Amino acid sequence: MKQYFKVDEWKIIEEGFDPHHHKIAESVFSLGNGRMGQRANFEEAYSGETLQGNYVAGVYYPDKTRVGWWKNGYPEYFAKVLNAANWIGIDILIENEQLDLAKCEVSGFRRELNMKEGYLKRNFRAKTEGGKLIEVETIRFCSMVDDEAGTIQYTIIPLNFNGALTITPFIDGDVVNEDANYNEKFWDEVKKGTGKDGGYVQLRTKKTGFEVATGMKFTLLQEGKVIPVSSQPVEREKYIAVKVVLEAAQGKPVTIIKYAANLSSQNYKAEELIEKLQETLQRISDKGFETMLAEQATAWAKKWENNDIIIEGDVSAQQAIRFNIFQLNQTYTGEDDRLNIGPKGFTGEKYGGSTYWDTEAYCVPFYLSTADQKVTRNLLLYRYKQLGKAIENAKLLGFKDGAALYPMVTIDGTECHNEWEITFEEIHRNGAIAYAIFNYVRYTDDEAYLVDYGLEVLIAIARFWSQRVNWSGERKKYVMLGVTGPNEYENNINNNWYTNTLAAWCMEYTMEVIEKVKLADQAKYAALVNKIQFNEEQETAKYKDIIQNMHYPYDEQLQVFLQQDGYLDKEQVLVKDLPMAYRPLNQKWSWDRILRSCFIKQADVLQGLYFFEDRYDIETIRRNFDFYEPRTVHESSLSPCVHAILAAKLGDEARAYEFYLRTARLDIDNYNNDTQDGCHITSMAGTWMSVVQGFGGMRVREGQLSFHPFLPGKWQSFSFNVSFRGTLLNVKISKNGVNIEHLLGKDLTVLVYGKEQLIKSNAIISLS
Amino acid sequence: MKQYFKVDEWKIIEEGFDPHHHKIAESVFSLGNGRMGQRANFEEAYSGETLQGNYVAGVYYPDKTRVGWWKNGYPEYFAKVLNAANWIGIDILIENEQLDLAKCEVSGFRRELNMKEGYLKRNFRAKTEGGKLIEVETIRFCSMVDDEAGTIQYTIIPLNFNGALTITPFIDGDVVNEDANYNEKFWDEVKKGTGKDGGYVQLRTKKTGFEVATGMKFTLLQEGKVIPVSSQPVEREKYIAVKVVLEAAQGKPVTIIKYAANLSSQNYKAEELIEKLQETLQRISDKGFETMLAEQATAWAKKWENNDIIIEGDVSAQQAIRFNIFQLNQTYTGEDDRLNIGPKGFTGEKYGGSTYWDTEAYCVPFYLSTADQKVTRNLLLYRYKQLGKAIENAKLLGFKDGAALYPMVTIDGTECHNEWEITFEEIHRNGAIAYAIFNYVRYTDDEAYLVDYGLEVLIAIARFWSQRVNWSGERKKYVMLGVTGPNEYENNINNNWYTNTLAAWCMEYTMEVIEKVKLADQAKYAALVNKIQFNEEQETAKYKDIIQNMHYPYDEQLQVFLQQDGYLDKEQVLVKDLPMAYRPLNQKWSWDRILRSCFIKQADVLQGLYFFEDRYDIETIRRNFDFYEPRTVHESSLSPCVHAILAAKLGDEARAYEFYLRTARLDIDNYNNDTQDGCHITSMAGTWMSVVQGFGGMRVREGQLSFHPFLPGKWQSFSFNVSFRGTLLNVKISKNGVNIEHLLGKDLTVLVYGKEQLIKSNAIISLS
Repeated sequence: MKQYFKVDEWKIIEEGFDPHHHKIAESVFSLGNGRMGQRANFEEAYSGETLQGNYVAGVYYPDKTRVGWWKNGYPEYFAKVLNAANWIGIDILIENEQLDLAKCEVSGFRRELNMKEGYLKRNFRAKTEGGKLIEVETIRFCSMVDDEAGTIQYTIIPLNFNGALTITPFIDGDVVNEDANYNEKFWDEVKKGTGKDGGYVQLRTKKTGFEVATGMKFTLLQEGKVIPVSSQPVEREKYIAVKVVLEAAQGKPVTIIKYAANLSSQNYKAEELIEKLQETLQRISDKGFETMLAEQATAWAKKWENNDIIIEGDVSAQQAIRFNIFQLNQTYTGEDDRLNIGPKGFTGEKYGGSTYWDTEAYCVPFYLSTADQKVTRNLLLYRYKQLGKAIENAKLLGFKDGAALYPMVTIDGTECHNEWEITFEEIHRNGAIAYAIFNYVRYTDDEAYLVDYGLEVLIAIARFWSQRVNWSGERKKYVMLGVTGPNEYENNINNNWYTNTLAAWCMEYTMEVIEKVKLADQAKYAALVNKIQFNEEQETAKYKDIIQNMHYPYDEQLQVFLQQDGYLDKEQVLVKDLPMAYRPLNQKWSWDRILRSCFIKQADVLQGLYFFEDRYDIETIRRNFDFYEPRTVHESSLSPCVHAILAAKLGDEARAYEFYLRTARLDIDNYNNDTQDGCHITSMAGTWMSVVQGFGGMRVREGQLSFHPFLPGKWQSFSFNVSFRGTLLNVKISKNGVNIEHLLGKDLTVLVYGKEQLIKSNAIISLS
Repeated sequence: MKQYFKVDEWKIIEEGFDPHHHKIAESVFSLGNGRMGQRANFEEAYSGETLQGNYVAGVYYPDKTRVGWWKNGYPEYFAKVLNAANWIGIDILIENEQLDLAKCEVSGFRRELNMKEGYLKRNFRAKTEGGKLIEVETIRFCSMVDDEAGTIQYTIIPLNFNGALTITPFIDGDVVNEDANYNEKFWDEVKKGTGKDGGYVQLRTKKTGFEVATGMKFTLLQEGKVIPVSSQPVEREKYIAVKVVLEAAQGKPVTIIKYAANLSSQNYKAEELIEKLQETLQRISDKGFETMLAEQATAWAKKWENNDIIIEGDVSAQQAIRFNIFQLNQTYTGEDDRLNIGPKGFTGEKYGGSTYWDTEAYCVPFYLSTADQKVTRNLLLYRYKQLGKAIENAKLLGFKDGAALYPMVTIDGTECHNEWEITFEEIHRNGAIAYAIFNYVRYTDDEAYLVDYGLEVLIAIARFWSQRVNWSGERKKYVMLGVTGPNEYENNINNNWYTNTLAAWCMEYTMEVIEKVKLADQAKYAALVNKIQFNEEQETAKYKDIIQNMHYPYDEQLQVFLQQDGYLDKEQVLVKDLPMAYRPLNQKWSWDRILRSCFIKQADVLQGLYFFEDRYDIETIRRNFDFYEPRTVHESSLSPCVHAILAAKLGDEARAYEFYLRTARLDIDNYNNDTQDGCHITSMAGTWMSVVQGFGGMRVREGQLSFHPFLPGKWQSFSFNVSFRGTLLNVKISKNGVNIEHLLGKDLTVLVYGKEQLIKSNAIISLS
């Protein structure tokens, strides 16, 4: 196990500069506030290997699909969240030498991500080729309070010279996406301007026409005092800068405070962007760096109050879980129902910042328990608003009568992915979207959501499933052919147990919700029926017929559900007998070999058993777990959490902990050798689930929160805060037992180990 | 049905110039001689839509793979036969106006492909924007005698003016492939030169380093007399030309005869190319146009003697079958075992001029019966020489111990294709290569081939199959998972009946050949065993076990073989009930919908029944034909011929004829709306099979030629020549019965309708 970063309860710390680790550190030290995100690129010039990343949430570009062999039905574009104008840049010239850590002798290098207060700090000394030695400290953050703004305090101390120091803060919109399919640039310039202490660039995305104004305003201080600026503007295509030359004196600090903001035409009229930008810059610079930093700490304290997990006795685990929670909060704040959560959040370009079923299956449980319910509601509304496009998408694939297939990958609701076995066949995503509605209502009891939005989505999804199955004359059953399950190491299979189960459940739940909505609001139901031309009698009769006659592959001898019809025809080998030289399979084996092996990428039957655990007795879950887990290679970061939760449920605490360990430090320790591309944001929610649903055994059962906790042997205690229907609890599991403290809201009755416990306002209950 | 070209027994004729049909005509009028090929581009400038195509056999470029989502095991390159230097170009300037049919008023336009004598003739009148009217006649051909050379006679008659005529013959190597993945140019210039009546360009392909010298030499005639040339050389990057200005007189013809040649470093040392080129140009220009044209006619007469099919009573069918035979002869002459047959031959860029299983399954039967046996032997040797790479290829996919998987698409033996469901899974191609060996030996009795080459290939293929199956603990059978059969409208299926059948047959035939080779040459067998480390006892024991325990999907009720395990789970719909709006499926349906439908792209089970017809009784074949044919959409040009042959065998003459019609005029009538990309060369062999094996009922049975002919109702008669083991026969089927005439070679006993008939040298037998 590698441990490059230092262990600390609240910080991620890097000591010493290793250019080979720089891209990994850029990902891990990423900052964000839900509205904008920034990889930990250096402010000053850096000619070494780096992945520039500045992202503005929701601003995307439809990159023309690249494909070897076109298949009818492939989308023309892959929508990608763009690399936007670089707002952090500050060029430093020491007399005539550019500060560039790839060219200097660097010492005392230290980066520190302060997760408690939400900022990134960097210190180093650099000696130029000419022998000039300086000390630098920078602190920056993306403001949680002013979520269109970021601020940097950059301090330089000449250590062995007096001389000219040229400081050039800039905004550079001439950026590229490294993963652009055709090496195109995605931005055009609209306008730009400079003043003596700032400037702006307004850019427009090609094709989509989003406009983003990025601007800066800066203050210079010498020895802590603001000094007048004698500056020189620099402008070129998509770029502005203001050059300031100072006489620096040995041992005397020079500081630049750069206030920056990104405003998007999603939120303002394009023609007003610059005016609003100037207002924002004025407002935050009036506020000042120190005040902003203090507000940032307060905002983060509020976040942590809702969702901190405290682990005693294991600093490494403590650091890891906080890092996961920190990144999730940086990525999505739930303020805007046009936004969603890309698998890499704002930490890299991979997956294009687009939305996957990760959101519904993994992120929703996290936000439900740790944030206001409107956060999850906005995630649900995002899909609701894309229903029309999901219906359109299904139509392109030959479905009719308002059936919806949500895309595998999307930003604006249109499908972006172009591998037929995934785009067209990994349709279980549709079920996850229905499941998230169920999960939300189960958790919040917000049945009004079903009336206003949920049912419409559910019917469209149920319609899809009812058309997607076909009657097998051979089996006298409904079958679902040609699908890819969550285990993407099988493609185009028949009767994926998970997908068939989820499909039937969707139809069942839809009928249940129809009854609820009818009861709740007959008029709204009638309006919906009319709007979507729903023939309740006929359509639900079809659902019932399918539910009753669905084929579920099952092996009588092993008494396990079969992942798909042909699973047992495969050579049955266990992962423990698979030579390490073959791992990871997706890098070592050709695709056909993976496909015909029995090895499973991520939970598939087990994902279904996790979703619908109440329908199966514990022995059924155990048999399936014991059969599938030894065949699972967990080559998706989304896999171990489901296993951790099920292992915990089965009482296998050791393995539950083992699975937890596989995800918790995934990015900090760069387990998969891919953290340089960005962090695995959505799987971080899985880590949270491993602790809260796994070790904490938390569930919602018939409207009640329920806990079946245990304490991992290595820990002294762990505790987590959880919100439930307006009540905030702290649940602490220690060697002494379970303490539940009521922090906020109404009295609440919860189940602990199956027994009801009333927790009164401001009270603590202790169970040993 | 469209009929753009005029019907004629020996010619393809276009009357009138339709720019929208020009790319189609460019394909249909393509010329070739096995060594070089040329689309029917105009000699003079043409600013309208055109697909330039000049190809030199065997000269390819490894174009970097373009793929949307990389899968481990994909090849880095797709080898493509290149567009080579344009050798036909002759720019014409009429005073100051460039002759360009896209800009002139064109009348009297006529193109004529003379298939009997092997040349293309074009006539037209063109009136320039300035009102100058000229008449042009051009004749050109790729010489069958001097197979590195092509010659053009280009005659201009000014009809309404006296004035300057500038004639600029050129060689232009600055060409591109339209299907280049990254818009790269593939050639670098090595050198070039010009003289007063000619010049050359020597080019080198990037990466592969093939060098090709393309040169020209020309003669000018006025009123039929050679005139001295006062010329001006023009040179630029990869381009040379010689500009000649003449005073042309109204009504007086001016003719340029352009001799050109393409010499490749495959056949000469690179540094000698120019010298050899000059020799070739001198030799052919000494010979002169008329002599070359006469030799061309003689060479083609010899070809037709061996493989003409004469149809009486149906000029359209006559033209079509000759067009198919003509193109096959233009594409491959069998002189060079480094060459093979691309699906589009020399008529377009599509499929990169690479080798597919089409060669073994469809082209081999044609060349076996219509050409010297060395032609097929060279096709077999091509694969033999690539055995090492096929073993390498299998190794990349995880196979071992000398197992070979021949590539799906290749030029030099490395795999070029990059769709996992095809590259890795359409492995039946390996069986077709074994089958071609069997077919060759069955036809020629050349058992020495087995000793020297065949067995080594067969064992490598048998080894592959024996590793590719796995034991199903569930079925207690060997199964073959994750394959794509000939029906590419199903992917990643389990137990494709065709593939399983072919695999078992390969192992069986390999064991049979082992015994033959042991008997024929014990020493060579021992040497082979040693060379390839063949453990006969152990490996053949494995083959036997697999053969005995192979799973063949079969439906007891329908008594048909199942195309794959899950075929009957599909909704069973017949093509006749499929709305025309859905056709062709591959343009109208998304890929998943095609995959889960029961519709079949091309013969699959039926392909197997065709290959192994002697193993199945006629009722089995009929049941399967009656089940599968109504589900087949024939969206591969390779499909109808197999159906025609089987329908004929089943006595269904009407349908046999119907299937024949689907292929015969495929390109001439542009059925599939894709002839602009090139002609379907390999499927042309299928058309020939439909006539000879279908209507003629020709087979080889236990070393004897056998015929079960019938006469399609619309025809007066049809006859074909067939070579068999050194004897040339003409078989004529007419309303009066069957006539077999002995044309060449030894006496031969054949079977006609199951009865032995001795045909003596120079005799004719008549059976009514």
